[in-house]
Amino acid sequence: MPESNNRLRSAILLIHCADQPGVVAAVAEFIHENRGNIVDLDEHVDASNEIFYMRVEWSLDEFAIRAEDIGERFQTLIATRFNMTWGLRFSHEVPRMAIFVSKLGHCLYDLLSRWQSGEWRVEIPLVVSNHRTLEPVAGQFGIDFRHVPVRKGEKEAAEREQLHLLQGYDVEFVVLARYMQILSADFISHYPHRIINIHHSFLPAFAGAKPYRAAFERGVKIIGATSHFVTPELDAGPIIEQDIVHVTHRDTVKDLVRKGRDLEKVVLARAVWGYLERKLMVCGNRTVVFS
Amino acid sequence: MPESNNRLRSAILLIHCADQPGVVAAVAEFIHENRGNIVDLDEHVDASNEIFYMRVEWSLDEFAIRAEDIGERFQTLIATRFNMTWGLRFSHEVPRMAIFVSKLGHCLYDLLSRWQSGEWRVEIPLVVSNHRTLEPVAGQFGIDFRHVPVRKGEKEAAEREQLHLLQGYDVEFVVLARYMQILSADFISHYPHRIINIHHSFLPAFAGAKPYRAAFERGVKIIGATSHFVTPELDAGPIIEQDIVHVTHRDTVKDLVRKGRDLEKVVLARAVWGYLERKLMVCGNRTVVFS
Amino acid sequence: MPESNNRLRSAILLIHCADQPGVVAAVAEFIHENRGNIVDLDEHVDASNEIFYMRVEWSLDEFAIRAEDIGERFQTLIATRFNMTWGLRFSHEVPRMAIFVSKLGHCLYDLLSRWQSGEWRVEIPLVVSNHRTLEPVAGQFGIDFRHVPVRKGEKEAAEREQLHLLQGYDVEFVVLARYMQILSADFISHYPHRIINIHHSFLPAFAGAKPYRAAFERGVKIIGATSHFVTPELDAGPIIEQDIVHVTHRDTVKDLVRKGRDLEKVVLARAVWGYLERKLMVCGNRTVVFS
Amino acid sequence: MPESNNRLRSAILLIHCADQPGVVAAVAEFIHENRGNIVDLDEHVDASNEIFYMRVEWSLDEFAIRAEDIGERFQTLIATRFNMTWGLRFSHEVPRMAIFVSKLGHCLYDLLSRWQSGEWRVEIPLVVSNHRTLEPVAGQFGIDFRHVPVRKGEKEAAEREQLHLLQGYDVEFVVLARYMQILSADFISHYPHRIINIHHSFLPAFAGAKPYRAAFERGVKIIGATSHFVTPELDAGPIIEQDIVHVTHRDTVKDLVRKGRDLEKVVLARAVWGYLERKLMVCGNRTVVFS
Repeated sequence: MPESNNRLRSAILLIHCADQPGVVAAVAEFIHENRGNIVDLDEHVDASNEIFYMRVEWSLDEFAIRAEDIGERFQTLIATRFNMTWGLRFSHEVPRMAIFVSKLGHCLYDLLSRWQSGEWRVEIPLVVSNHRTLEPVAGQFGIDFRHVPVRKGEKEAAEREQLHLLQGYDVEFVVLARYMQILSADFISHYPHRIINIHHSFLPAFAGAKPYRAAFERGVKIIGATSHFVTPELDAGPIIEQDIVHVTHRDTVKDLVRKGRDLEKVVLARAVWGYLERKLMVCGNRTVVFS
Repeated sequence: MPESNNRLRSAILLIHCADQPGVVAAVAEFIHENRGNIVDLDEHVDASNEIFYMRVEWSLDEFAIRAEDIGERFQTLIATRFNMTWGLRFSHEVPRMAIFVSKLGHCLYDLLSRWQSGEWRVEIPLVVSNHRTLEPVAGQFGIDFRHVPVRKGEKEAAEREQLHLLQGYDVEFVVLARYMQILSADFISHYPHRIINIHHSFLPAFAGAKPYRAAFERGVKIIGATSHFVTPELDAGPIIEQDIVHVTHRDTVKDLVRKGRDLEKVVLARAVWGYLERKLMVCGNRTVVFS
Repeated sequence: MPESNNRLRSAILLIHCADQPGVVAAVAEFIHENRGNIVDLDEHVDASNEIFYMRVEWSLDEFAIRAEDIGERFQTLIATRFNMTWGLRFSHEVPRMAIFVSKLGHCLYDLLSRWQSGEWRVEIPLVVSNHRTLEPVAGQFGIDFRHVPVRKGEKEAAEREQLHLLQGYDVEFVVLARYMQILSADFISHYPHRIINIHHSFLPAFAGAKPYRAAFERGVKIIGATSHFVTPELDAGPIIEQDIVHVTHRDTVKDLVRKGRDLEKVVLARAVWGYLERKLMVCGNRTVVFS
Repeated sequence: MPESNNRLRSAILLIHCADQPGVVAAVAEFIHENRGNIVDLDEHVDASNEIFYMRVEWSLDEFAIRAEDIGERFQTLIATRFNMTWGLRFSHEVPRMAIFVSKLGHCLYDLLSRWQSGEWRVEIPLVVSNHRTLEPVAGQFGIDFRHVPVRKGEKEAAEREQLHLLQGYDVEFVVLARYMQILSADFISHYPHRIINIHHSFLPAFAGAKPYRAAFERGVKIIGATSHFVTPELDAGPIIEQDIVHVTHRDTVKDLVRKGRDLEKVVLARAVWGYLERKLMVCGNRTVVFS
């Protein structure tokens, strides 16, 4: 049973627009006039590009506008005036997430454990893999597993099948939990800023294959992991979260792999948490991660 | 030459009051109506005590109210209505800070270097010590050094002299940079939440004397440092910043002291930075540290 | 399939004795004369107590003494002379571990996932709990689960049953994965330095119950986790591993619990890893953790 | 007055050779037979290249060989047999270090403060710079400052002058404390593995100029610093120490510079400490950093 079941019923607005005077005042007024009580407000001005970002969450308990009408009213009264781009979420929605994996299971175990134990407010209806290796893991957690092999020259067909599955399972966002295939720009375009990957290095160092081997050979004293939104350029999307662990000359490549595994799990989990809490915005190739 | 010389001329309001609807809207409106552009806004609701905290900074470039009148106008138009406690600061003010030391110099060197190199926007007119050990260090940085011995049974007289010095040098806040004397409640009452101490442990572990020795004996695998506002209860004031470093069985007490020194310097410096940037508020025995 | 399957066949000696000249030379000679090649050697001198600690690992490939005779020969030729206490392990042995849990599953999931995925060279034949909550988790990983309730006044009987189970399953060491009962001195005496606990604070701060609540109330800026060997005094045994994560004024007790969970998992896992690799020694109330 | 004044009089051997049986035994025997007591011994086998590294320190109090004869005896009795490369150091030697700087003073202040306060057992006879900016800082610490401008096309002459100065001041090793000039291969060849640089990124990411700007533009969530031995290839020498600090979307390039400064100071200081303690060895393009 998710621990957040009895959470406040609230609305969350994620807004960005050209930086201009009066935006905060207008949004705060809109909420206040309609008897919403702001429980969290954070804003960020990207000074170099003069863009304004805002996340505001308010209680719906006494809010004068019905949930289903908020969007339209906000568009008419506020968003149009400031030429805003915005998204509206509700705390009682439960996002649906699919996991893509290959053969390595540590991130999959971690994600499924968080879901099953109720740590996260999420539904995970589907695991997709280009191998059958992890089918028993999905099975033991009671989750549908679909094997979609990605053979040479048949990636397009495979991606069509994957997209079909995602639609069929009504998936909102995708997590690549050490999925070893590169997704095409077309596939990514169906889930813009809704595909999260974990890369096993502190990007931009050691992009591409075999980062632990490369890190060992360079003789680094830290290794890292990076979670990021997937974009068509490999390992170059907006970074959501990074962390590192210290290593020494005693650590072999095998040790780096072992230490890195724990890092990958937690760095990916923090990114997914940020997504679930509606705290992530993308700002060019950078992310705004509201705390 | 401080790097922040050509910084924006801005006003900073630090506000707290009972949590209630409409506060953000009212403050944002006040600024907007008078043609101030908000450059930073952060707020925090202490849900357990239902207290609202806010830091808002806005540009004074086209602001309709003169700097010297802002306080009065804000009090009349906004603060009274919401029963707010507030403080108003300006980015062009340069805070005046005194440093208290005993015999250990590493934090003193660090603070003075940051000042002299222009890293910080601060004036340091005075170093006070109960020993003469560090007089040459103050001297080499060109700062007045006053030796105020604290003899047994004569602490009251010593503190009177210290307070007299602080007033004479027009000091706004005090930094205890490994000052080994305990200040009386009376002394502290003259600088409420304006005395910052560095303690060489991750409080609340190892409060009091000889924390590295105690940490060694307990066999911990991390040591820490804590900067906090000084209150009458020893090492129990609101914590501003903490950090740690890993240690191993190979580290002797001497090694802990050595590793800890670097930690103390940076943990103290971050707290002073927060103070200088007007980002610290106190909330019961906890701090709000706006980022 | 454990990744370490094709690991080197090696012997590991863990030695301690009074510090005295010639120990390293004698041990190295013993191995060398018998055509063992040292692959890892680490030593530590506890200078305050003048005790010498050593871990040495050597290849058995061409070693002149049969594995089953090494202990006796070492005792006769070396250990007696220096009055050593020592333990001999082999890299091809697979330790058997039992897990004790109560209602919280995150550490259990983590430990079982590491076992099932072959990350660790360990057997986990048994999960024991005073509640039935996590029975399905053990079941889904195919591990025996035994429910041993610990009712008021019946702890002695419960511990007898637990000890009986541990013997029956031929368990070498026990991991308390957020097990919420205090073990008696008698129970502990059966597994000296072979019971590992995870405590959810940076000990010695916040020993005992509800450390996250206490940490929140003290207003700390870091929270921690500590894995340690269990001794009769609560939360006071030799510390194996500690780590921390930064928190801010925005974090509620619930947030501390959430952030702490990830810390607990990894800090416990690192301790178990050290145990499995035969890298832990106890030195009074401190641990030697060879790297 | 250095705190290490009354330190043990000891000898330190740094050894590397092809990995082969009997090395540890032979070295330990050599020390033991001559009544030296080993106070620290650490070894490392680079398994991929089959090279053996060792650091051993022993007390000279009752050692049968005079300090000035140890090298020759060790060469004859041990080193020749195993074809070892080795270096011999004594704990009572005080290394002489020169600092090269340009205009940024934070690392210089930090290094000089550690020296002046007696934290480090080192002599710093000389600061060299291509600018006059930091001349007063060297002066205030009472250290000779030499201005060696590096004009376009005249680098060779400048380096000749620098080398002449280093010889004149009998300098053992050089620290580049944010020195903004690239040293030629010829210059470096005079101080092989005896020039330490601090680079303001987590190498290999963001090598070259303006790493903080590049880090900002990539949108990383951590920034780092790297200390390394200087080799002819820019920012590619053996890494000694790395560390990082977390950043957020709120941090501007200026904030990265500020946060990075504290990192640079401590990462450079740790490397210098390792050098002073004779704990660094180079192994191809990797370092062995004995703890």
